[in-house]
Amino acid sequence: VTSPARIGVAVIGTGYWGPHLLRNLGTSDAFDLRWACDLDADRARTLVGRYSTIRVTDDLADVLDDDAVHAVAVATPASSHLEIALEALDAGRHVLVEKPLAASVAEGQKLVDVADERGLVLMCDHTYCYTPAVKHLRQVVADGTIGAVEYVDSVRINLGLVRPDIDVIWDLAPHDLSILDFVLPEDQRPTAVAALGADPVGAGHACIAYLTLRLPGDAIAHLHLNWLSPTKVRTTIIGGSRRVMVWDDLHPMQRLSMYDRTVTSVDAPREEQDRLRFSYRVGDMRAPALPENEALGAVVEEFARAINEQSAPLTDGRAGVRVLEVLEAAHRSLRRDGVMVGVTLPALDGGRP
Amino acid sequence: VTSPARIGVAVIGTGYWGPHLLRNLGTSDAFDLRWACDLDADRARTLVGRYSTIRVTDDLADVLDDDAVHAVAVATPASSHLEIALEALDAGRHVLVEKPLAASVAEGQKLVDVADERGLVLMCDHTYCYTPAVKHLRQVVADGTIGAVEYVDSVRINLGLVRPDIDVIWDLAPHDLSILDFVLPEDQRPTAVAALGADPVGAGHACIAYLTLRLPGDAIAHLHLNWLSPTKVRTTIIGGSRRVMVWDDLHPMQRLSMYDRTVTSVDAPREEQDRLRFSYRVGDMRAPALPENEALGAVVEEFARAINEQSAPLTDGRAGVRVLEVLEAAHRSLRRDGVMVGVTLPALDGGRP
Amino acid sequence: VTSPARIGVAVIGTGYWGPHLLRNLGTSDAFDLRWACDLDADRARTLVGRYSTIRVTDDLADVLDDDAVHAVAVATPASSHLEIALEALDAGRHVLVEKPLAASVAEGQKLVDVADERGLVLMCDHTYCYTPAVKHLRQVVADGTIGAVEYVDSVRINLGLVRPDIDVIWDLAPHDLSILDFVLPEDQRPTAVAALGADPVGAGHACIAYLTLRLPGDAIAHLHLNWLSPTKVRTTIIGGSRRVMVWDDLHPMQRLSMYDRTVTSVDAPREEQDRLRFSYRVGDMRAPALPENEALGAVVEEFARAINEQSAPLTDGRAGVRVLEVLEAAHRSLRRDGVMVGVTLPALDGGRP
Amino acid sequence: VTSPARIGVAVIGTGYWGPHLLRNLGTSDAFDLRWACDLDADRARTLVGRYSTIRVTDDLADVLDDDAVHAVAVATPASSHLEIALEALDAGRHVLVEKPLAASVAEGQKLVDVADERGLVLMCDHTYCYTPAVKHLRQVVADGTIGAVEYVDSVRINLGLVRPDIDVIWDLAPHDLSILDFVLPEDQRPTAVAALGADPVGAGHACIAYLTLRLPGDAIAHLHLNWLSPTKVRTTIIGGSRRVMVWDDLHPMQRLSMYDRTVTSVDAPREEQDRLRFSYRVGDMRAPALPENEALGAVVEEFARAINEQSAPLTDGRAGVRVLEVLEAAHRSLRRDGVMVGVTLPALDGGRP
Repeated sequence: VTSPARIGVAVIGTGYWGPHLLRNLGTSDAFDLRWACDLDADRARTLVGRYSTIRVTDDLADVLDDDAVHAVAVATPASSHLEIALEALDAGRHVLVEKPLAASVAEGQKLVDVADERGLVLMCDHTYCYTPAVKHLRQVVADGTIGAVEYVDSVRINLGLVRPDIDVIWDLAPHDLSILDFVLPEDQRPTAVAALGADPVGAGHACIAYLTLRLPGDAIAHLHLNWLSPTKVRTTIIGGSRRVMVWDDLHPMQRLSMYDRTVTSVDAPREEQDRLRFSYRVGDMRAPALPENEALGAVVEEFARAINEQSAPLTDGRAGVRVLEVLEAAHRSLRRDGVMVGVTLPALDGGRP
Repeated sequence: VTSPARIGVAVIGTGYWGPHLLRNLGTSDAFDLRWACDLDADRARTLVGRYSTIRVTDDLADVLDDDAVHAVAVATPASSHLEIALEALDAGRHVLVEKPLAASVAEGQKLVDVADERGLVLMCDHTYCYTPAVKHLRQVVADGTIGAVEYVDSVRINLGLVRPDIDVIWDLAPHDLSILDFVLPEDQRPTAVAALGADPVGAGHACIAYLTLRLPGDAIAHLHLNWLSPTKVRTTIIGGSRRVMVWDDLHPMQRLSMYDRTVTSVDAPREEQDRLRFSYRVGDMRAPALPENEALGAVVEEFARAINEQSAPLTDGRAGVRVLEVLEAAHRSLRRDGVMVGVTLPALDGGRP
Repeated sequence: VTSPARIGVAVIGTGYWGPHLLRNLGTSDAFDLRWACDLDADRARTLVGRYSTIRVTDDLADVLDDDAVHAVAVATPASSHLEIALEALDAGRHVLVEKPLAASVAEGQKLVDVADERGLVLMCDHTYCYTPAVKHLRQVVADGTIGAVEYVDSVRINLGLVRPDIDVIWDLAPHDLSILDFVLPEDQRPTAVAALGADPVGAGHACIAYLTLRLPGDAIAHLHLNWLSPTKVRTTIIGGSRRVMVWDDLHPMQRLSMYDRTVTSVDAPREEQDRLRFSYRVGDMRAPALPENEALGAVVEEFARAINEQSAPLTDGRAGVRVLEVLEAAHRSLRRDGVMVGVTLPALDGGRP
Repeated sequence: VTSPARIGVAVIGTGYWGPHLLRNLGTSDAFDLRWACDLDADRARTLVGRYSTIRVTDDLADVLDDDAVHAVAVATPASSHLEIALEALDAGRHVLVEKPLAASVAEGQKLVDVADERGLVLMCDHTYCYTPAVKHLRQVVADGTIGAVEYVDSVRINLGLVRPDIDVIWDLAPHDLSILDFVLPEDQRPTAVAALGADPVGAGHACIAYLTLRLPGDAIAHLHLNWLSPTKVRTTIIGGSRRVMVWDDLHPMQRLSMYDRTVTSVDAPREEQDRLRFSYRVGDMRAPALPENEALGAVVEEFARAINEQSAPLTDGRAGVRVLEVLEAAHRSLRRDGVMVGVTLPALDGGRP
């Protein structure tokens, strides 16, 4: 018998990310994990293992026919998100969807609308937003610690799998764009984007890409995405007017560093303007102690909280749509040799973010 | 009495770079260092020191009136290069000029033409090209070790002086562009460039810039230039079809790393194309032992060799002009919000590089 | 019904290491995982989770009464190893024991003797010996790649739990000593050890310790063990006469580096001996590509292989006894203010290692 | 004519360190650099260069005959320090001596005594003590920022020149011992030392050595010295009861890190003592901004200050003698296979440090 306090849940898709969802939902006290569903049932069966009571199926209908299932976590390819998530929403289930939310802005918006209509939780698994590092970054931006954000530079490169179905932007940029969406103030979200790329190995689409985003207030954000680099780098610099954060996600001990080294313009007597125009502050660096939590554990707890409290999760479907809007604008720029393309931010529902 | 075997030389400009020129020319057996010349004679006097026999002047005419001076090294601001270098060439002296060669392509080309007419050496001090690391990079590209160059990614950022007179592209890109010019094969030089930047501190010009260069054969090169970063990074990745070089100029021990990790497309039976299209090679990494030479010492020796052998130096005025051509194209792009702008490579002298 | 091809197995002790054993035994095709046993049955139950068919007990007798259990993996505190492992061996079960094998040489030898008498596998879980890095180190020593081992320097420090029951040597040195035992040739095992330590926080035993081991041939090995260091370091240098290996277990990408930089003495004419006595080779560095396997997976496969083939495992009980011999000698030295103490290597069974 | 405000000075010995002394004395406004003296006058001549007015000689008498010479800086091998420094002191000159002060405690004490008798400055060039990092370390110990020093761990290894005349302890330990002497409070100086080493390359003396020093209060200091390591490491950890400093002298940007991660024992109810005995503080890390000064410049300024103010320099002859005392004790230990040997601290002059 399922505990009444627990949310019955199923994982749809047991490929790359599914195992992590299974493990975290399976150890959460908030959930009762009932199904692992995959078109390849053998893969699902292998994954749950020989000693598990979790049921396995290759048919989504089996899952949705189970009244004890209140929510599903979808970790299938993005092209199938719309169909699966819609079916689950139509069946009255809350939905957690892997990034990116869907294959287009229109599809993502459709999911948002249906979830709204039905009063169901639609959450986007922007996992990075639940890491201690990104939560800290959001905090120091929000509370003014680092001042106004002036520039963001992110490098996400390694020898990655050259995906046959999607390009490197579609594969990697959702990470950075969801982090930006989470960390930047609402009024400093990207307004335009330029994208350039290259396909030196003949993949049929970009394997290397550079995205430059305009942010309000002459700020800039830049992403370097690369499947071909032999070295793995995951570093983001967030330059503020008062301090600068450097996030090195691969550093074994010092993931976040806050530098008190900044340049600011100062008023100077006219005759000395050339020499005195800038003030350089070279202060200490501080690396905050961060807890060592698994981000996905926080994701499933936030999903449970949103369901139980009937409120929007931190990374809701709207956040997923905003990420898709930048992705689509980037691809329009890419096809036009890097011209700057505006990111449309339609007021979907009367101005709510 | 000057040794007849030694080339009499003077240093013009004793600001940031002048001291290094003085030291290297002063210890070279090829040169007889006679003058330090600066509009601020006190600065020049302080620099040569209390125990020196090197003469000091604030007047270039003093230098050029000295028949024992055969060559000058110019380390003044770029805006004065044309005037000073022209005066020296007109007076029959060989000239070594700091990067960038001049303030515009037209000025640089003028210097090349005059030096050619008079049969004098015009050398550009592209110092990085004389480091053991860059010489090694040029070698592994030239001899096919790394295969065809597919991408170049360079990051040159630190908390630098915000220059009032020039932007960050003009300040830092000459380093990377001169390295690219030196390392890439002649037929793979940049054909177009897109540039975007930001000026968050109110300098009046870009303090952060991103340059994306198109290279023949769908290859790409990208530069990140930044005066505002609290961390100092000087890393260049050169991705080849067979191997990838990573140059970390700040690593205390392992500046160059050659990775045998690459992705290549492979022919696959039609029915398996999605799964087998790419081959991933993950082999060892090799870090070549490099000698510890000061690059500027090699620069002055190359200047001496070119003078004595009456032949073109490795980094001649033409190389300086090519760098200026990309710089000018980048600024045209910057003013047009990042559109891709062609780099003009006029056949200056019937096709000679 | 258990597959006849699978070895029925139970995990005894579900504290720090038990979860890892459960996970690896549970996903191995060689084993049928039947029990998780802990004096604290709730802890065991939490660990196997709500969706598991693995049985839980707080009574070892339950496990040994199950005829389908052929082997046990013991992950309890070292003080209980003798009793538990003996009971299992007496009941005819193969035994895998966490490091250290037992609480003393005498206890460890007792286990070896009993396992020998009964023809059962006694394996010591020297996990590090099954990492790709340590296997590579063993290989380059064995095949002569790095020449004769001249020195070993190992640093294993971090802000660790100050154990109330055992000192830092007993806690951390088994890692390094088991690695040394695995990597060094049989005839170059430690012959004597000196140990010094400090207890600045009042733990009642050493929280910082330095062990210096004499190896045959004027070679030396040194361990730095420290629970109080704010930084985490796990680096081992193995200096050979031809090459030197540096193993940085925390480096995200380059765990092993092989340096071709060595010093060797050379014969010189008598009159020049002062200047020419040494030859310095400064060659390239090579970082071998290593597979990314979980070591504990290889441990359980080796345990299965030894059981199925009825042969000694790579890290058998004798290896565990040898580690205990050095540990005991180190503690004798520690009590005598660091005097060098011989490691007794009795010929236990006619000379077999 | 020499400026009366300037101290006439000569450099004796123009080998490895002499050039640095020449450069720093030559650019200091406090000194008038008059001579470079070396048994090999050609070497001295090459060093001062073709454009210098500094006189060169191979005879110390020439230097001491020059009445305008008030002080000498001695950078010859340690075995000659006594003779040269004594001759200079006897001739009434202030003396700056390279580390180590002399070849034995007795010799060093002789120099101290003579300088005292004659009222002359005897300064030891413990260069590291004048780096911003070591000055900061001294400060945070002195002002209580890091609490009581509990342990020091220093690693100074690289592929160094195997010296034919002295072992690795004599070559490298003076650096660490002079730093310890400078940083530790007077009442926490080393009381005993154990030393072990190895000579795998047949140098005739230790090329690898480990020194363990007892400090008052159950504190410990440990030095790893190694000429054979292919990697260069210069790291010192100073563990305090409140904070821990980590000094990485080769880090291009973050030389000093102050960690707020410590373990302290706490009082606990008797029944819970096993679980609650220790408190772990895991706070932020702070890397102080340090100025970028050349240490040797500060050395020569301190030498000038001591001469002009007729007071003891920060690193006086007594500091040099204390370093020699630990060195001698270490060698006694080394010859006795690592037994702990007391460091004698005779009350040389009535108890003054």
